Amino acid sequence: MSERYDIAIIGSGPAGLSAALNAKIRKKKFIIFGNKELTAKLSKAHEINNYLGFYKKSGKEIQEEFNNHLKEMDISITEEKINNIYAMGEYFGLMVNEKMYEATSVILATGVQHGKLFDGEERLLGKGVGYCATCDAPLYKNKVVTIISYNKHEEEEANFIATIASKVYYIPMYKEEVSVDSSIEIINDIPVEIIGEDKVSKLKLKNSEIDTDGIFILRDSISPGQLVPGLKIVDNHIEVDRLMKTNINGCFAAGDVIGKPYQYIKAAGEGNIASLSAASYVDSISKK
Amino acid sequence: MSERYDIAIIGSGPAGLSAALNAKIRKKKFIIFGNKELTAKLSKAHEINNYLGFYKKSGKEIQEEFNNHLKEMDISITEEKINNIYAMGEYFGLMVNEKMYEATSVILATGVQHGKLFDGEERLLGKGVGYCATCDAPLYKNKVVTIISYNKHEEEEANFIATIASKVYYIPMYKEEVSVDSSIEIINDIPVEIIGEDKVSKLKLKNSEIDTDGIFILRDSISPGQLVPGLKIVDNHIEVDRLMKTNINGCFAAGDVIGKPYQYIKAAGEGNIASLSAASYVDSISKK
Repeated sequence: MSERYDIAIIGSGPAGLSAALNAKIRKKKFIIFGNKELTAKLSKAHEINNYLGFYKKSGKEIQEEFNNHLKEMDISITEEKINNIYAMGEYFGLMVNEKMYEATSVILATGVQHGKLFDGEERLLGKGVGYCATCDAPLYKNKVVTIISYNKHEEEEANFIATIASKVYYIPMYKEEVSVDSSIEIINDIPVEIIGEDKVSKLKLKNSEIDTDGIFILRDSISPGQLVPGLKIVDNHIEVDRLMKTNINGCFAAGDVIGKPYQYIKAAGEGNIASLSAASYVDSISKK
Repeated sequence: MSERYDIAIIGSGPAGLSAALNAKIRKKKFIIFGNKELTAKLSKAHEINNYLGFYKKSGKEIQEEFNNHLKEMDISITEEKINNIYAMGEYFGLMVNEKMYEATSVILATGVQHGKLFDGEERLLGKGVGYCATCDAPLYKNKVVTIISYNKHEEEEANFIATIASKVYYIPMYKEEVSVDSSIEIINDIPVEIIGEDKVSKLKLKNSEIDTDGIFILRDSISPGQLVPGLKIVDNHIEVDRLMKTNINGCFAAGDVIGKPYQYIKAAGEGNIASLSAASYVDSISKK
């Protein structure tokens, strides 16, 4: 049996980090999933003036303060991407490809997906469009797969798919240099529309077109409704009460994922609340 | 006519300060009422580790960071104590003794009153027990008044009452040196119970007793229900929605005053939300 955490925090933006601080202070056994760079959004911020206590600091500088804080409190971030979270009654199962983590409570702090869906994406979801390449890989044995990737970390996924599919196209939506298996064809063009009647047949790009059987869109965050089946979503955000409880017992949420305003200090404040709520929940469970 | 502010913020703890930052950034005409020392609670905090970005700082050090932030953004705190806020329809009237401020919207960030009421306080409220000495002073012409004061700032109130009452007892509940008019008798003892049938007759202290006609209890914060008549209070906290709206149009609240957990970053996050909500409200009004 895998070890069970008290609290699993998904996301390493201000909400997730703030939640981690309290989980640590409350001496809970916790794990935080995210990126060691914390959040792309923060690191790109030019200047932030409305995070009380920091004046005229750049996103990078605030990121450094956050990183120092984590380091001093001996908190480290687990760089794995959770694909699905299942409420199993007494605990949650958090799926990372073939691996599963267990946690008594979960805090969702996955941020918001900025930018809209591609034309055809929603209509063809599950009909060739997917968000987890590894999960659905077996479906594409000897077929053509296209990966639209928003993060360098996904290159591994592409390499893995390349061992199964007959052909992999890789479309990097990030600026870092791409280094994937030589069998993979890198396309430097911008996707526009996913085409197909009952299932995906083509990807239309700005300057080209690709015939493909499947398209994986690997964004930094999966939509919360997909991540946790059964989660109540209202207007594209997770519904929570003032204590950051969702409709699922033991599942809490904080930060941009629960709604506007999209502000760092608001997210950090909510992460704090979510963490204390999760700690109380864990205590109440362990007393039973 | 007095000038009208877009936003009046009541309270200079993390919620109020965070609200002020956004009011400034959104270029609203605002005023923030509180103390230049910000908040007694913060300055007394030994070490704070769960304010994301600050590690192992004392309350005093964090206070300094906050003060720098305010200074850099040219925000200054108005040291006046609001006794009552009245919703006048298009605007709010904020009463400071004989003076009135006007604001289109209000953010209540007054914190919580720690410590419980004195025995007899609630029962005799309005029957000799009061919270605003200046307001009720005329009732005590040539009578004996006792002031239980939690803040050195109240010494002025005491001096004012001394010009009206026949006798003033002053009971300081703070540690700073007391300097009041020589006609005022300073009592260094701890109040225990307010005694009287239909109206106040005595104050019982730990080691003594005082015959008195009126007792003013001057705490750092007035309860929000007293401050804003008609405000919906649930379990001793102001009820707000996720955008920090109260039941009164144009009136928002943030921080400890809206409920637990009582945490700095939670308060700062809520102040941010309240301020953006107030700014939107002001914009919507000015468009009419």
